[in-house]
Amino acid sequence: MNKSSVGRFFEDFSLGQIIEHPIPRTITEGDVSLYIALTGSRFSLFSSHHLARKVGFDRPPVDNLLLFHIAFGKTVQDISLNAVANLGYAEVQFVLPAFIGDTISVLSEVIGLKENSNGKTGIVYVHSRAMNQDGHSVASWKRWVMVHKKAEGMLNTFAVEPQLNSEVSPAYLALPDQFNADQYSYISSGEEFALKDYEVGEWIDHIDGLTIDASEHTMATKLYQNNAKVHFNYHQMQDSQHQQRLVYGGHIISLCRSLSHNGLANAQWLAAINGGAHLNPCYAGNTIYAATQVQNKYELGFGMGALRLRTIGFKNVQWESIKEQVCSATNPKTDFPENVVLDLDYTVLIPNT
Amino acid sequence: MNKSSVGRFFEDFSLGQIIEHPIPRTITEGDVSLYIALTGSRFSLFSSHHLARKVGFDRPPVDNLLLFHIAFGKTVQDISLNAVANLGYAEVQFVLPAFIGDTISVLSEVIGLKENSNGKTGIVYVHSRAMNQDGHSVASWKRWVMVHKKAEGMLNTFAVEPQLNSEVSPAYLALPDQFNADQYSYISSGEEFALKDYEVGEWIDHIDGLTIDASEHTMATKLYQNNAKVHFNYHQMQDSQHQQRLVYGGHIISLCRSLSHNGLANAQWLAAINGGAHLNPCYAGNTIYAATQVQNKYELGFGMGALRLRTIGFKNVQWESIKEQVCSATNPKTDFPENVVLDLDYTVLIPNT
Amino acid sequence: MNKSSVGRFFEDFSLGQIIEHPIPRTITEGDVSLYIALTGSRFSLFSSHHLARKVGFDRPPVDNLLLFHIAFGKTVQDISLNAVANLGYAEVQFVLPAFIGDTISVLSEVIGLKENSNGKTGIVYVHSRAMNQDGHSVASWKRWVMVHKKAEGMLNTFAVEPQLNSEVSPAYLALPDQFNADQYSYISSGEEFALKDYEVGEWIDHIDGLTIDASEHTMATKLYQNNAKVHFNYHQMQDSQHQQRLVYGGHIISLCRSLSHNGLANAQWLAAINGGAHLNPCYAGNTIYAATQVQNKYELGFGMGALRLRTIGFKNVQWESIKEQVCSATNPKTDFPENVVLDLDYTVLIPNT
Repeated sequence: MNKSSVGRFFEDFSLGQIIEHPIPRTITEGDVSLYIALTGSRFSLFSSHHLARKVGFDRPPVDNLLLFHIAFGKTVQDISLNAVANLGYAEVQFVLPAFIGDTISVLSEVIGLKENSNGKTGIVYVHSRAMNQDGHSVASWKRWVMVHKKAEGMLNTFAVEPQLNSEVSPAYLALPDQFNADQYSYISSGEEFALKDYEVGEWIDHIDGLTIDASEHTMATKLYQNNAKVHFNYHQMQDSQHQQRLVYGGHIISLCRSLSHNGLANAQWLAAINGGAHLNPCYAGNTIYAATQVQNKYELGFGMGALRLRTIGFKNVQWESIKEQVCSATNPKTDFPENVVLDLDYTVLIPNT
Repeated sequence: MNKSSVGRFFEDFSLGQIIEHPIPRTITEGDVSLYIALTGSRFSLFSSHHLARKVGFDRPPVDNLLLFHIAFGKTVQDISLNAVANLGYAEVQFVLPAFIGDTISVLSEVIGLKENSNGKTGIVYVHSRAMNQDGHSVASWKRWVMVHKKAEGMLNTFAVEPQLNSEVSPAYLALPDQFNADQYSYISSGEEFALKDYEVGEWIDHIDGLTIDASEHTMATKLYQNNAKVHFNYHQMQDSQHQQRLVYGGHIISLCRSLSHNGLANAQWLAAINGGAHLNPCYAGNTIYAATQVQNKYELGFGMGALRLRTIGFKNVQWESIKEQVCSATNPKTDFPENVVLDLDYTVLIPNT
Repeated sequence: MNKSSVGRFFEDFSLGQIIEHPIPRTITEGDVSLYIALTGSRFSLFSSHHLARKVGFDRPPVDNLLLFHIAFGKTVQDISLNAVANLGYAEVQFVLPAFIGDTISVLSEVIGLKENSNGKTGIVYVHSRAMNQDGHSVASWKRWVMVHKKAEGMLNTFAVEPQLNSEVSPAYLALPDQFNADQYSYISSGEEFALKDYEVGEWIDHIDGLTIDASEHTMATKLYQNNAKVHFNYHQMQDSQHQQRLVYGGHIISLCRSLSHNGLANAQWLAAINGGAHLNPCYAGNTIYAATQVQNKYELGFGMGALRLRTIGFKNVQWESIKEQVCSATNPKTDFPENVVLDLDYTVLIPNT
């Protein structure tokens, strides 16, 4: 028997099953530097240890997107290596800050299973939790993927589909305990806009574009130890409909988030991702742009607030050319221009001082 | 109003104005490793913490070019995002060593302003200072850029052009206090040549060539959090005269400096940049070579000396093919072959033992 | 006289000569992150500091391949800059663990010399040792290269060819003292297979493929401060038979080792490389695959064992297409398909619990 693994199939999952994902990972200064070099991130809280200490952190915290990519990467081998499609994710919550030096391990519980009527595939729902070396949750999310069956045919199992919230409730937004908004510096962040300056419904064109190179997206994805084949193997992908490697969707989220610094420089703390759709694939050579709409705003007390944002990522076109079509769309999947690659609904913390 | 910024225009600058640049940055071991991987730097003092301690540093110092790129990157958003041209820089001084773990913040003072007669642009002169977390200056430089006006027309302001020295005086060359030349190892550096072995006028052909790849120069520039569009946005640059992204001039300086290790391995401490011209643009795929002339030498005492150097960087050609034309040129701008990309005048410290 | 070096020629070597290689190098967290990003390595022991401590290490150990590449890189300038060919290596032993923060320096002794009858080249055999900052050996290896003579003609020196062992004896396999196999976690590594589960003669198809991009292999090689021209200078290499830059053979070893995680996840500690052949060159754009045969197995006591492995690396083809030809080959050099790029004979430690 070949000792190498081809990943799990639908029959390998059972309801309530707990999967401890291998390869716990210490997040280091090296990862943080690479994250900046690969995504162009410029949020001050994650650039300056001195600043992080000033606002109350004992140790420098890690950007929640870097944490998420590393934690998500752990789950790929067990959950989605045989995925026909990554169908969605929801309730992505950042519970406690992760710090440079923390070791992250991840486990997933199977919370839903549903066979497809074609007898070839099924849908698996998992709830994944990332913990630090002390066993405390730092992040938590749910996602569902369509996976192949080992053998064609119906198992006629009972279908269980979990209830998924369309928004992480503001009541659950974790404000880092350590954070002292009074010490926050708008000069260091680069913009003066606080919670009060944003209006529900307003759009921000982030203007700039970032071109993706092949080495860049593959290095990022390898850094996260995400081993999904579609990102790395040109030899196989050249015979696919894409004719080349696909960029990891999380890298697109990071690029859009980095671009969003221009207009959202104080929205430094990603607190939750409510949901997201990756509407079209990205390839090396694509130039990514982004625009964001403020969907809602919340006062959280202690000098802090939250913004629920919708960031649209698009490629090889500027916002003014597609804005009208995006804003008038009833159904993103059918009405958005094909340049749109990401439609992300998320919540960020922002000072309210 | 769009919350994102398109940068400052000529009208946004006033004489004596102090600009505190955002996004202070902690320089970490991750940055140092990336700098080595992206530039091929091989100077022993910045490769070995053990060696750095042996010659007197409590903590490992950071290569002054890495420090400069990070500090310079901070100023781009406020000074040169709307630059028509980066016209020049002078009096680049490295005042105190920066160490791994230091957090660098930068401020600039407007020291000169001059409208151009076309009514469309003006020249802005700034004096920038990089400080560590204790408020001590680690680097200081002056530069001048041509920026767009918001609205066409003459403001008829009083023109102020600062006096700029063509050389940082040897009297101001900062010898790191901690440095103990007696403990310096010529075996560890890889060459035996000390100050006394260099002759004024001598040329050194650094022989080797380094080819620039797209991911490499964009990763370096993102690492420095320099957000000048011309380096990152292929979608926009393909319609420019260049038809592609431009390599950040500072990356070329670093590549030439790395190449110069072959022949200048003991000239480890960059103490000042007196001036520099980026004579032709560089693109991904170019192979960079370098040659250096010794312009002057100084004894500084305590077993140390300084060399004033002129390094010529050129692309896709070896030194022997262009040496004659370079050496006989009266005016670099008109007489140099178009392969020449850099003409850098700088001063390095070197042991004199 | 030009101060830059073109490397040593055959006449510059003498029997018994000791060469202290310059540029000692501190291995940092930044190097480890880059190694993961550049090779896709997923061995748990080098991903999690927490796990490393749990099995007995005071400080996080460095992957022996990263150590080897950095140590090997030091020797290039003195030994192989003028190599016509890197002929082979043997007896690569990892004596003591290297830890993050260790500073590695390397010296080589000339242990063999042999002129070729063409009068133009000769073969140099060296024994290289890498030491940590306390002067303890961490790695040791022998290699032989064919180098140019300065001047054509026979020196008629006495030929000395060292005896080289075809296998590092299991008696010399260094089991890290600190290692406590009882604390080892098969859940964290990702596979359940211990020494007892492997059978001599069995083949493991590692399934996955990794495509090499230009920036990636040149960044890795620059990270190791290996300055062999063939990897970096497209301008020169475009006129060679390869018409492009060559990938450093060590990068191929690392890619194959990373791929081998799928089926050998518990074979985390590379203890020795018995020998290796780089049968065909690799270029940017190649997709690397690997398969491994178990050659031998040893019980070492203390809950640990060793596997002698033969990993075949090949490009742009899957194992099933070439397996028959590889397994039936009498002489790899003539009988292997030209897709095979690496034939590596090495020994790994693996738990036996």
